[in-house]
Amino acid sequence: MILVRNETSPEDVHGMHAAEAILTAKGGMTSHAALVARGWGKCCVVGCGALAIDDKARRVEVDGKTLKEGDWITLNGTKGYVYKGSLSLLPADPEKNKYYRELMRWADKERRLGVRTNAERPEDAAAAIRFGARGIGLCRTEHMFFDPERIQAMREMIVADTEEERRKAIMKLLPFQRKDFQGIMAAMEGYPVTIRLLDPPLHEFVTLDKDQVKELANELGLSEKALSARIAQLHELNPMLGHRGCRLGITYPEISEMQARAIFEAAAALTKKKKKVYPEVMIPLIGTAEEFVNQKEIVERVAQEVRKKTGVKFPYLIGTMIEIPRACLVADKIAKEAEFFSFGTNDLTQTTYGFSRDDIGGFLPDYIAKGILPEDPFQSLDREGVGFLVATGVRKGRATQPKLKVGICGEHGGDPKSIAFCHEVGLDYVSCSPYRVPIARLSAAQAAIEESRRKKRR
Amino acid sequence: MILVRNETSPEDVHGMHAAEAILTAKGGMTSHAALVARGWGKCCVVGCGALAIDDKARRVEVDGKTLKEGDWITLNGTKGYVYKGSLSLLPADPEKNKYYRELMRWADKERRLGVRTNAERPEDAAAAIRFGARGIGLCRTEHMFFDPERIQAMREMIVADTEEERRKAIMKLLPFQRKDFQGIMAAMEGYPVTIRLLDPPLHEFVTLDKDQVKELANELGLSEKALSARIAQLHELNPMLGHRGCRLGITYPEISEMQARAIFEAAAALTKKKKKVYPEVMIPLIGTAEEFVNQKEIVERVAQEVRKKTGVKFPYLIGTMIEIPRACLVADKIAKEAEFFSFGTNDLTQTTYGFSRDDIGGFLPDYIAKGILPEDPFQSLDREGVGFLVATGVRKGRATQPKLKVGICGEHGGDPKSIAFCHEVGLDYVSCSPYRVPIARLSAAQAAIEESRRKKRR
Repeated sequence: MILVRNETSPEDVHGMHAAEAILTAKGGMTSHAALVARGWGKCCVVGCGALAIDDKARRVEVDGKTLKEGDWITLNGTKGYVYKGSLSLLPADPEKNKYYRELMRWADKERRLGVRTNAERPEDAAAAIRFGARGIGLCRTEHMFFDPERIQAMREMIVADTEEERRKAIMKLLPFQRKDFQGIMAAMEGYPVTIRLLDPPLHEFVTLDKDQVKELANELGLSEKALSARIAQLHELNPMLGHRGCRLGITYPEISEMQARAIFEAAAALTKKKKKVYPEVMIPLIGTAEEFVNQKEIVERVAQEVRKKTGVKFPYLIGTMIEIPRACLVADKIAKEAEFFSFGTNDLTQTTYGFSRDDIGGFLPDYIAKGILPEDPFQSLDREGVGFLVATGVRKGRATQPKLKVGICGEHGGDPKSIAFCHEVGLDYVSCSPYRVPIARLSAAQAAIEESRRKKRR
Repeated sequence: MILVRNETSPEDVHGMHAAEAILTAKGGMTSHAALVARGWGKCCVVGCGALAIDDKARRVEVDGKTLKEGDWITLNGTKGYVYKGSLSLLPADPEKNKYYRELMRWADKERRLGVRTNAERPEDAAAAIRFGARGIGLCRTEHMFFDPERIQAMREMIVADTEEERRKAIMKLLPFQRKDFQGIMAAMEGYPVTIRLLDPPLHEFVTLDKDQVKELANELGLSEKALSARIAQLHELNPMLGHRGCRLGITYPEISEMQARAIFEAAAALTKKKKKVYPEVMIPLIGTAEEFVNQKEIVERVAQEVRKKTGVKFPYLIGTMIEIPRACLVADKIAKEAEFFSFGTNDLTQTTYGFSRDDIGGFLPDYIAKGILPEDPFQSLDREGVGFLVATGVRKGRATQPKLKVGICGEHGGDPKSIAFCHEVGLDYVSCSPYRVPIARLSAAQAAIEESRRKKRR
C-alpha cells in the first residue's frame, strides 16, 4: 500500500507507518514526509507537483490519466520516479555483505566523530545499533502524543481554562511517556539518549474537520462554538516561527514538568533493574539564555524530586538544541548553563536563509537552474551562512565551557559533505536517521583521513 | 467608523483607509494592522484577544456583552483601551506649537543621522516632509497592486501558464505603477526615494471565497477547478519564509522588469519637466550575492533601455534590503554589487529570533511577565542578537565598499532606543512612518549629544 497525499503532518504518522511507501505532491527533501520516511528506511517521493490529488474522491490525476484508490503504482525513491503499474522489486540488506562490514570496520578505526541516530521508537533504535549508531542524538517526543488514546489527553489540556485543569489533563500522559522513554533507553542500554521536549505548535494536535469538532466538543463537555474559538485562537500565520519549542514549556510549564518526570522515572526504574541509562534532556528552540534557565530549573527540580522519591541515583544532562541564529550569537551565555549543544540545522537553515523547508519547492528548482544556489541547502549544509553560525556557536560555547559536548541532529548529520564540515569545526558527534548511519560512519572517516593528509602536505 | 477584525492583510487596506480607527483581536505592535495604522497616523488597538469576532454575523462578543455593526465604541490607541459608547475626543497638532518647532530646530542642528520616512502615497510623503523627513527610506509597492482595477491584471499574471502570457498581464500594470512612482517622486522633489520591488507572496493576491473564485474564473476564462488548483498551489505553510521578495523577481523576472520600467519612465518624465529625481531601487529579501546580481542585471538593463528610448539621463541607485541573517553574514560579497543597504529589521528580528510578528502574541505576554524578554523585540531593537547582525552587516559591507550608504527602514527606525543604536553603529539614516519623524529627529539628536558627552568624559 502506498500513501498518496498532498503533504503529510504529524497526525499522519500512523498511516505513514502502515504504508509501504509514500508519495506527496508537495514538499522537498526535508518535508515532513521525507524526514519520516528516511528515518524509517521507507521509500518516498515528495514534491511531485504534477499530481492533482483529490483526497475526498480518493483519486489522482496526472498527465490526463486518472488513478484511483487501489490502483498499482511503483516508486523509485532514489531517482524520484513514479511508474504506473506494479514493477518487480529487489530487497537490499547491506549487513549480509562482508565487504560492507570490513569497510565499516576500517572507517570506525579512522573517524573522530561519534555517530548517533535520530529515533523515537525502540525498534528504530535497535535498527540503528545494528547499523553502528552509538547513542540517540535526537529522540523527538511529539509522535508519542498522536496515539488515539493519548491525543485525547493532549486535547483536554489544550482546551483547559486553568493551570490546574491543564496539569490534570497532561498528567494523564505521564504513564505513557514513561513507558516510551523506558523502552527507548532500554533499547539503547549503555548509550546516551537525547530526548527533546515537546516541540510543535499546539494547533497540530487539534486539526479537525467539522464532524471531529462536534465529536470532540461532546467528549470534552464543551460547546462546539467554544471549541472552535479555541482552535481558531491557536491558528498561526507562520507556525514555524510561532508558539512552539521552549515557548510552549515556558507558557505551559506543566508540559515540561510531565516530560521531565517521565524521563527521570523511566531512568530510575531502569537503574533499579541494574540497567545503565544516560538520559540527556534537550530544550528546543532556545534563542536566549533566559529561556534556557527557565526550562532548566523545571527539569532540574523534577530530577531532584524523582531521585529523592525513588532513592535511585541516575546520571543526566540538560542541554539545548541550537537552531535559531540568535542562539549561535549568544552561545557563550547559553553555555554557562547548558551541558550540551545539539545543532538543529534544519531549523537553523530555515531561519538563516528565511526559507521554509515546506514551501521551498516553489522557487528552489529555478534557483538551481539559474545557478543562484548550488544545491538544496536543506540537503547539504551551507558553509558560508549556516556553517558560519554553527562555527560561531561552537567557538562561543566552548569559550565559556571548554568541555561542552556538541553534536548535530539536523538532516545534515547524514550528508557526507556536511559531515566533513562537522568534523572540521570540531563537533563531537553527528546524529542521523538509522538508515544513514553507515554513510555517516564512512564520511566521518573520510573527513578524518582528509584532515591528516592536509596536515602532512603542510 | 472603526474597523474591527481578527487581523488585517494587504487586501484590507482600502477598508482600513476608510476607517477612523482599527481594532483587531490578533497581532502585536508590528502586525499588519499596527504597521499600516501607524504609518497613517491612525488610532489602532491590536491583539485584543478578549474579543470574539464573528465577521459574517458582523458581531463582537466580549465579556458577555455583544456589540453589533454600527454600535459606538471609542479607542485609546496610546493605552490600548476599548470603551463601549462614544467618548468625546481632542485633536492633536504639534506643528502649531512653537515650542515643538524650536525643539526640532535644536535637534536638527545636533543630529548626524538623516531622517527619512516610510511612505507609498504622495499625501503621506507630503505629510512626512512637513514633519521634517528628507527622503523616503521605504516605498512599498504591494499596496499599489490591490486597487480593484489593478489586482485583476495581477491575478491574470498569477494564473498565466506561459512567460508570454504572464508578461502581457503584468505589463497592464505599467501605466499605473509609472503614475504611482511619478506622484511619489514629485512629492519628494529633491529628496531620494527608495522603492522596494514587490515583496509579498503571490497568494495574498488571490485570497478569495467560493463566489469570488467563480467570478474570477469566469473573467479569466478558466474553469473553477483549474483556478482553485492554482490557488491551492500557491498556498504556503509559512508564507513569511516562502516564495516572496527577490524570490518572486527571480522566478518571474517580468515583475521586476515592469517595476523597474515604471520607476525609470517616471524618473525620465519628471526629469524632462526639470524636476529632480533620485530613485533608489531596492531588491528585497536578499540572502546571497547571486540573488542580488540576478535582479540587479534586470534593473540595470531596463535603466539603460529607458535612458536610450527617452534620451533623458536621470540618476539612480540599485541596492538591497538586508533582512535575512545570512545577508548580514555575506554583506561583504553583496556590497561588491549593491550601492546601498537598508536594514529591514522587522524581518531580521523575525528570522534572528525565529519569531513571527503576527503570532508572537501567543507567548510574548508570558515572556515579559517572567522576565525572559525585557520588551517586545519588534518594538525596540535587540542589540545583542539582531543588533550584532546589523553591526556585522555594516562592518562587512563597508569593508568592501567604504562609501556604502546604509539606513534602516524597519519599525525600529522610529523607536528612540533603536535610533540610538543606529547612531552608534554608524548608519547614514533612519526611516520611519511619517508620524514618527519628529521623535526620530529628536532621538537622533539625543544620541549625538550622548556620544559627544561620552567622548568628553574619557
